[in-house]
Amino acid sequence: MNRSDKAAKPLVIFGINPIMEKLRSSPEQVSELMVVRRHEGASLNSIIEAAQRCGLPVRYVDAQRLSLLTAGGAHQGVAATTMPYSYLPLAELLQALAHGPARQHILVVDGVTDPRNFGALLRSAEGAGVRYVVIPQDRSVGVTPAVVKSSAGAVYYLKIYRVSNLRRALQDLKHAGCWVVGLDAGAAEGIYDRVFPEKVAIILGSEGTGIRPLIRRECDFLVSIPMRGRVASLNVSVAGGIFLYELVRQGQRAEADLSKP
Amino acid sequence: MNRSDKAAKPLVIFGINPIMEKLRSSPEQVSELMVVRRHEGASLNSIIEAAQRCGLPVRYVDAQRLSLLTAGGAHQGVAATTMPYSYLPLAELLQALAHGPARQHILVVDGVTDPRNFGALLRSAEGAGVRYVVIPQDRSVGVTPAVVKSSAGAVYYLKIYRVSNLRRALQDLKHAGCWVVGLDAGAAEGIYDRVFPEKVAIILGSEGTGIRPLIRRECDFLVSIPMRGRVASLNVSVAGGIFLYELVRQGQRAEADLSKP
Repeated sequence: MNRSDKAAKPLVIFGINPIMEKLRSSPEQVSELMVVRRHEGASLNSIIEAAQRCGLPVRYVDAQRLSLLTAGGAHQGVAATTMPYSYLPLAELLQALAHGPARQHILVVDGVTDPRNFGALLRSAEGAGVRYVVIPQDRSVGVTPAVVKSSAGAVYYLKIYRVSNLRRALQDLKHAGCWVVGLDAGAAEGIYDRVFPEKVAIILGSEGTGIRPLIRRECDFLVSIPMRGRVASLNVSVAGGIFLYELVRQGQRAEADLSKP
Repeated sequence: MNRSDKAAKPLVIFGINPIMEKLRSSPEQVSELMVVRRHEGASLNSIIEAAQRCGLPVRYVDAQRLSLLTAGGAHQGVAATTMPYSYLPLAELLQALAHGPARQHILVVDGVTDPRNFGALLRSAEGAGVRYVVIPQDRSVGVTPAVVKSSAGAVYYLKIYRVSNLRRALQDLKHAGCWVVGLDAGAAEGIYDRVFPEKVAIILGSEGTGIRPLIRRECDFLVSIPMRGRVASLNVSVAGGIFLYELVRQGQRAEADLSKP
């Protein structure tokens, strides 16, 4: 697994969508675009144009070199050298909770190590209107190039807080008025059996073993996704998407109820 | 991509969950278990015991050989030689629809080529209580070992129909009383804006371009998943999971309404 996010080294991100979103959201953090000359296509051309508009140097490289630079990632003919991902201090999130809108959702990811799963989770979170993600420093993948790719660049519209003590962070969130809800396959209550509070932090555990007991104990309550088949669980990124979108559905419904005469 | 499902050659599946589910569901289709000797663990031991109970030969191999046999898959120290996956004729599904329960959901996957995405979709479908999956013969990944792995073995509890003409298959489903609904990012109507019919086939399109126009025209209606962020779409397996589980939620609610005095 690529843990280059731990170093202060530049990050070589790759793929059409991630680089397009990076150029849209924070082009000042990009130092160079690398393109495979033989690659063609409208998407690649619009990336090159966008980079040139930002005054970025565009370097042509061969495909083999790009594969090497991206550790064999599905680069689609393009990579970019960017500043390392900046995690934010939790204090900033606690401030945002105190002063932000009433309805706020936070995604907490405890122990997901697969970059594709973590990236897909970030993409779903962003799609569901979540802005804040909390992850632990250890035993979890951070924002690596593979995660950026799998998130389709959604990571650039999220604020990610990487904490050394997740349990303490959850306690802080509760003090800030957040409900802490764990998604747990063993929970008797299903996600459709409850109306969720407006300020809620939802916790997803690791692919294999779920939420750690220490973290589970901090949950105000646990819910599960109903399983109607023989296999006991869902892919963690799918499960997260289903849970996040139940919050979207409930929010949409609450808005509709409010607008009734 | 591994397209070994096309040949009548045996399939070498791999990974703890897939092999456990195969031994549970159809052990008579397994001819041999292969285990890496140095691998240890309770899960691996229970697979070996299950295989021995079925009277299957267990062969010890080195890790390198297993990696070769599984094309570099995440084999977790175990693989099994099985009969090739048996797709079923659509006529069987049309019969099942005519004689089965009122509420039946069918998943139609048009053009998903990534084995991990297709496998995760099958896992979600099985979890959501879906029994029937329809895929086109061409331009889609079939049931390869990587798909079996990503499905966590859920594929063994599903009936998969692989058709040469998907458009015709949809017409047949409509004649059999099914509503055909496409998930399309451009649809004005959201998945939460509608109560879905009891017999419904939902169609998911490819990762890049969605449902093909020819197939879209066969849809009774199109719905989208509401996007509350800046990135335009979700991972296809996550989107499928969200849609399938909205059907679960609506089914649960319909049951609750029925049981009210």
